[in-house]
Amino acid sequence: MVAPLRIGLAGLGTVGGGVVRLLDLHGARLAERCGRAIVVAGVSARDRAKAAGLPLGGAQWHDDCIDLARRPDIDVVVELIGGSDGPARALVQTALANGKHVVTANKALLAHHGVELARLADENNVALNFEASVAGGIPIVKALREGLAGNRLSRIYGILNGTSNFILTAMSKTGRAFGDVLAEAQALGYAEADPSFDIDGVDAAHKLSLLASLAFGTEVDFGAVHVEGIRHVAAADIAYARELGYRIKLLGLARVTPHGVEARVHPCLVPVDAAIAHVDGVYNAVVAEGDFVDQQMFQGRGAGAGPTASAVVADLIDIAHGLRLSPFGVPTAALARLPASPMAQRMGCYYLRLQVVDRPGVIADIAAILRDESVSIESLLQRGRAPGEGVPVAIVTHEAEEAALSRTLQRIAHIDAVLEAPVLIRIESFTAS
Amino acid sequence: MVAPLRIGLAGLGTVGGGVVRLLDLHGARLAERCGRAIVVAGVSARDRAKAAGLPLGGAQWHDDCIDLARRPDIDVVVELIGGSDGPARALVQTALANGKHVVTANKALLAHHGVELARLADENNVALNFEASVAGGIPIVKALREGLAGNRLSRIYGILNGTSNFILTAMSKTGRAFGDVLAEAQALGYAEADPSFDIDGVDAAHKLSLLASLAFGTEVDFGAVHVEGIRHVAAADIAYARELGYRIKLLGLARVTPHGVEARVHPCLVPVDAAIAHVDGVYNAVVAEGDFVDQQMFQGRGAGAGPTASAVVADLIDIAHGLRLSPFGVPTAALARLPASPMAQRMGCYYLRLQVVDRPGVIADIAAILRDESVSIESLLQRGRAPGEGVPVAIVTHEAEEAALSRTLQRIAHIDAVLEAPVLIRIESFTAS
Repeated sequence: MVAPLRIGLAGLGTVGGGVVRLLDLHGARLAERCGRAIVVAGVSARDRAKAAGLPLGGAQWHDDCIDLARRPDIDVVVELIGGSDGPARALVQTALANGKHVVTANKALLAHHGVELARLADENNVALNFEASVAGGIPIVKALREGLAGNRLSRIYGILNGTSNFILTAMSKTGRAFGDVLAEAQALGYAEADPSFDIDGVDAAHKLSLLASLAFGTEVDFGAVHVEGIRHVAAADIAYARELGYRIKLLGLARVTPHGVEARVHPCLVPVDAAIAHVDGVYNAVVAEGDFVDQQMFQGRGAGAGPTASAVVADLIDIAHGLRLSPFGVPTAALARLPASPMAQRMGCYYLRLQVVDRPGVIADIAAILRDESVSIESLLQRGRAPGEGVPVAIVTHEAEEAALSRTLQRIAHIDAVLEAPVLIRIESFTAS
Repeated sequence: MVAPLRIGLAGLGTVGGGVVRLLDLHGARLAERCGRAIVVAGVSARDRAKAAGLPLGGAQWHDDCIDLARRPDIDVVVELIGGSDGPARALVQTALANGKHVVTANKALLAHHGVELARLADENNVALNFEASVAGGIPIVKALREGLAGNRLSRIYGILNGTSNFILTAMSKTGRAFGDVLAEAQALGYAEADPSFDIDGVDAAHKLSLLASLAFGTEVDFGAVHVEGIRHVAAADIAYARELGYRIKLLGLARVTPHGVEARVHPCLVPVDAAIAHVDGVYNAVVAEGDFVDQQMFQGRGAGAGPTASAVVADLIDIAHGLRLSPFGVPTAALARLPASPMAQRMGCYYLRLQVVDRPGVIADIAAILRDESVSIESLLQRGRAPGEGVPVAIVTHEAEEAALSRTLQRIAHIDAVLEAPVLIRIESFTAS
């Protein structure tokens, strides 16, 4: 048997604790599988109390996590601190520069500094593995980097944030309002006290930027991701969507267009017969489309101690097996730099909801604007009557260019009888990619 | 750049042609990704005409495929001949014994001789990769062997045969009879002229035996798989299932019980809200349940030139990267030999359909037998009246032991008023595993 793989673990929160427990519980199985033991040689955390009660064996405590990256007897640094800068970044940089493999669950760090860190990993011939940073326990990084690597991938999309999906699912099942459901999710621990990263789409955008790089062989470009969250999704939208044969999901979508990489996170109406429409609650799902493999969907829990620990340990197993790939699948120097495809050029169908005064002529005014902008109406629903007062109107368009929709919305917002800012939600039908 | 990986390809049917086309189309991308080219150095097929029109470059033709396993300049033999014995088996044995890696799509070969061949691979320190043999392009072998390897897996199940799923889906969508839909599937090329392997569950059982070995670290044991096909599923069953909140799917299921490994392929009623109920047409799906990762579902095309070629090439990429794992994830000598858990001990709910004479007292007789065998009725549907003639009755039971159901069915079949052999379909609700 080969010498053990010795790891230094920084961060003993939910995920770090899960990793320690997994390695303790399945140590013998893993040693048999890998031909060598995986041993926690050192740990560090903000608060030493975090180590209490964990089966840490003979692991040495370090007040300063950077020490893990400097210990000559440590082979792999596992970074579970979080945050795009600060100690996490310093630790990963130092570890890579010192010739140590790194396993991280830190999507923010990689979304912001992925190319620089991947280059450092390549230069030092070490692995920088980040399975746990996208879609929890789903082995999607491995699937893109290895399992589907024979394909040219044309599109990747998915439900990448469990908190948002939990909220949208609960709104859909109960008819309740966004704020109500968010408060409940916070009480249940499914949403943070400051939920902005999750519900404003930032977390999903971090993950999408990594998936796009893996899928298309392009440099990670978080700044190019168009990001919208779910705060503006109303119970009325979910009800209309249902009536029209759709569900509303917060998706991250990326594809290569003739203009560059189109990467966007926003709520979408998805057809009820699409598999992803049925991925509910805290589940995540990722769909990848390749020229040979056609469409693949991967579904599982996107967060939590167990699934995330499973992904961290899978990365460790690869390192124990001696597998070292460039972080984004191709040598970092070979990653392409493509421009961001402008959202204004997105072609697709749209759902609009307007709050208008219920009086003759209003619909005609709106329809005229749509006609002027060459946006044709697929369906229009006006439910309920309240003469002289506000009523909601839902419109679904045929395929149109986003720029035309933007102009349309601006003009509609100026009609006196339109009482609130119009709501626009894109429709994704997942046809030709 | 390292020397090219030189492959010898045996079999130039649909899949072999797909592999050649993929390697030709994406050769440059793959060389960049792997740090070395993947080159087809030799080919063999039953009929030399198969090579015509394929971009085979300078690959040498061999009348006898065994020559590929003997050529000193070949690193990997790709076996796409098929069949559990004969030339496929001889080729794979010779290649492994000669220290060549093997990539195969041959589920029958591995279901019957997997342990022996895996041992040979281990002894010769070569890879025996078979991603393409299970669920087409879905990287499920990799997921089990690597991505989820940190987990103790408790259960694995899935839709493993696209032909059967196509037929059941078409029956469900159109209400047509099995024979009608089979004939259509044959005309469309989705079913073979002799469809037995697909519709009698054998193909799914081959795949399930491999998945069980990968998931549980046990020796492949095809003989221990309980196999039933879909010939007895009637349009009436599909209609009743729908009314009761279920769909009918041909599933392969395996789990470890206190009695050993339970592995079975048969039609199942699955709840309409289970994700797998919505995997339709020629799609495959595999669900794996692990102690840390919870439930994961993988979904994609289970057959066809493109998806299968994608899987074959993924295996080649792993070899090009220098990754060599034991075929079933742990050293073959360490695979456990567990007994087959008897079907008679299966606990679960059951759907029964009886054709009975429509006259008073018949249902009472049937109910008495169920009561005597301690099988309790969850629901009973008798639709339509035809006094004195045959009418169908559908019964759903609460949880019971399979042995009790077997006795029940035998006794019911002896009632005079029961006109046909009762149909039994197991209900799988995927709760506690």
